[in-house]
Amino acid sequence: MSVVFKKVILPLGFQANGLSAGLKKKNKPDLALFYSVVPAKAGCLFTRNKILAAPVIVCKKHLKNNRGFQAVIANSGSANCFTGKQGIKDAIDMAVAAGNALGIKKDAVLVASTGIIGKKLDVQKIKQAMPALVNGLTQPGIDKAKKAIMTTDTFSKEITVKFSLGGKVVTCCGIAKGAGMIAPDMATMLCFIFTDAQITQGALNKALKSAVEKSFNCITVDGCMSTNDAVMVLANGMAGNKIINTGSSFSGFCSALNKVCLELAKMVIRDAEGATKFVHIKVAQAKSVKEAKAAALGIANSALFKTAMFASSPNIIGRIVAAVGASGIMVKEQGLRIKHSPLKNKEIEIEVSLGAGKCKSEIYTSDLSYEYVKINAEYN
Amino acid sequence: MSVVFKKVILPLGFQANGLSAGLKKKNKPDLALFYSVVPAKAGCLFTRNKILAAPVIVCKKHLKNNRGFQAVIANSGSANCFTGKQGIKDAIDMAVAAGNALGIKKDAVLVASTGIIGKKLDVQKIKQAMPALVNGLTQPGIDKAKKAIMTTDTFSKEITVKFSLGGKVVTCCGIAKGAGMIAPDMATMLCFIFTDAQITQGALNKALKSAVEKSFNCITVDGCMSTNDAVMVLANGMAGNKIINTGSSFSGFCSALNKVCLELAKMVIRDAEGATKFVHIKVAQAKSVKEAKAAALGIANSALFKTAMFASSPNIIGRIVAAVGASGIMVKEQGLRIKHSPLKNKEIEIEVSLGAGKCKSEIYTSDLSYEYVKINAEYN
Repeated sequence: MSVVFKKVILPLGFQANGLSAGLKKKNKPDLALFYSVVPAKAGCLFTRNKILAAPVIVCKKHLKNNRGFQAVIANSGSANCFTGKQGIKDAIDMAVAAGNALGIKKDAVLVASTGIIGKKLDVQKIKQAMPALVNGLTQPGIDKAKKAIMTTDTFSKEITVKFSLGGKVVTCCGIAKGAGMIAPDMATMLCFIFTDAQITQGALNKALKSAVEKSFNCITVDGCMSTNDAVMVLANGMAGNKIINTGSSFSGFCSALNKVCLELAKMVIRDAEGATKFVHIKVAQAKSVKEAKAAALGIANSALFKTAMFASSPNIIGRIVAAVGASGIMVKEQGLRIKHSPLKNKEIEIEVSLGAGKCKSEIYTSDLSYEYVKINAEYN
Repeated sequence: MSVVFKKVILPLGFQANGLSAGLKKKNKPDLALFYSVVPAKAGCLFTRNKILAAPVIVCKKHLKNNRGFQAVIANSGSANCFTGKQGIKDAIDMAVAAGNALGIKKDAVLVASTGIIGKKLDVQKIKQAMPALVNGLTQPGIDKAKKAIMTTDTFSKEITVKFSLGGKVVTCCGIAKGAGMIAPDMATMLCFIFTDAQITQGALNKALKSAVEKSFNCITVDGCMSTNDAVMVLANGMAGNKIINTGSSFSGFCSALNKVCLELAKMVIRDAEGATKFVHIKVAQAKSVKEAKAAALGIANSALFKTAMFASSPNIIGRIVAAVGASGIMVKEQGLRIKHSPLKNKEIEIEVSLGAGKCKSEIYTSDLSYEYVKINAEYN
């Protein structure tokens, strides 16, 4: 049994806060703090971009130490990437500042940044804001935190799933930001998930990997991969359930985490920069899942497919054919079948059968509009 | 010694013509014929898209027979792709119609189509137009032919190089069409090159492969690969030079062919759909040429790089960093150096040093503007 809430409700033992530290113009909120009253296990997945932002590098170090995590400090307004040794020092300083203010060690803190690449992070402003940020920590403070991580987002992405496990109620909630999925210098995808489930480190890692594979790794706006993308889950065990490792309790946890990740991923697409359509691409009859995904991504990332979607153009079939043919997989014209919903709809399903096997894959994407060009041309 | 002319001048023994066969609306020219009075050797390179248009399939068959080529028949208005067995039959019928009208065998004819994918070709109209097309064949008729292959092109792409070889003047000229490089259903890249050089089949193939690798394979507008892309060269030997095979005569021919291909490729980029900028990306200090090219293409095909180019946005550095990092090559932040021309310029050079080795690669591309979205959304 599980219940889904379309808003974020922090689980037992979690608090958050958000405010303007002055990193962004016009006093927009730009600094968020998430806190667990007891040490939590952390599971994290990061961008596969070869250039990593400083906060990603620092997180990886703290995760290696793995001494229990109690906080995540996240800023918008600067990605703190391509900022050299000073950037690493600034990311560490962010963790130190949060740790000092909370009375915990710096490696119990995870760090995330989003904004313009190559712009130095003004860590002094973060330090100055820390007392107010910590003093304001509350459970409903998550509503301030979720706003402080936004960049070009037009709405906050949030969801909560509550489910019962051996008589205990377990909560798993998440917030995400990102509007030009995996987009280099402005619309990094950041996702923070909090659960009071008690779970082994191995099970947490496994569940997160599987959930991300089926959600955040199945969405694309522009095919651009950010240097800062991160999905983090903190599990503090305060629900008091019997520790989750394998079996039915693991499946129950996975299904809640999957739901949180998939719904957040879909919200990112619904808020995609300039998007006027939500497009669900299903590829079937592929020789392998890998080929199915390559074909689906080939379609989803084709600028010509996306502009035809925007215009509800009947050319869409030809553009799908060309994109599948260019995706690198083996495909024969005779085996190829394409169906789609009426193109004037706001939600469009594209079904492509390759006629080559039994595997399938699904990708969510958006169209390419004048507005996408405008947003990405004018961002600063 | 070579002389370059910025217009197309057919070499000895070549004639051409173009007219409206009624495939396109408003009596726009849509059918072109190129003819050599004597059988010529042909070198061809086609799209690597796994879905091949019918004319490409038919050309490949005729090239296998390799009994000498005397004509190329090309239409705009339909790509004759994803048109099944009927499409193949129509492409053959096009060759037969041209062959009959010219009094040559069908496999002495090469076929090319460009236009909307999945739209049946009205081969009856082509047959009806054939007598007028053949009757009008002349050397200056190339100026009509070059217009008949255009789709969204705003100007014709043409060039001629004349050079001397052992006291004989050899001419190599080319025309190209394409405005959304390698773009599935509208802006297929077609290039027809004619030379009166006498050259062995092996040398011709080798020269073409090398020229295309350094020209058409170094340009990208939107990263979309067409089902119809073709580069064809006919060499009829009428210059009477000593047959080119290896050595200095081969180098001389290659340098003329390279010039023709590179200039035509650059013209395609200058006419890129909606483009406001011509962008030359140079990647150096790579471990291998493959890595250099992957990095350059990664930048060139990034929607975020292209929109920043359009807007002359200072975010460009961050977007290059992210694109290089996402390109799949190994790269370290410390080794990466980026320089560029003033962003307000119409011609922009981007220099990226990877600090990893001694190899380099160059790519030409355009920006991504509102106009690109408009052209591709509204095309029909």
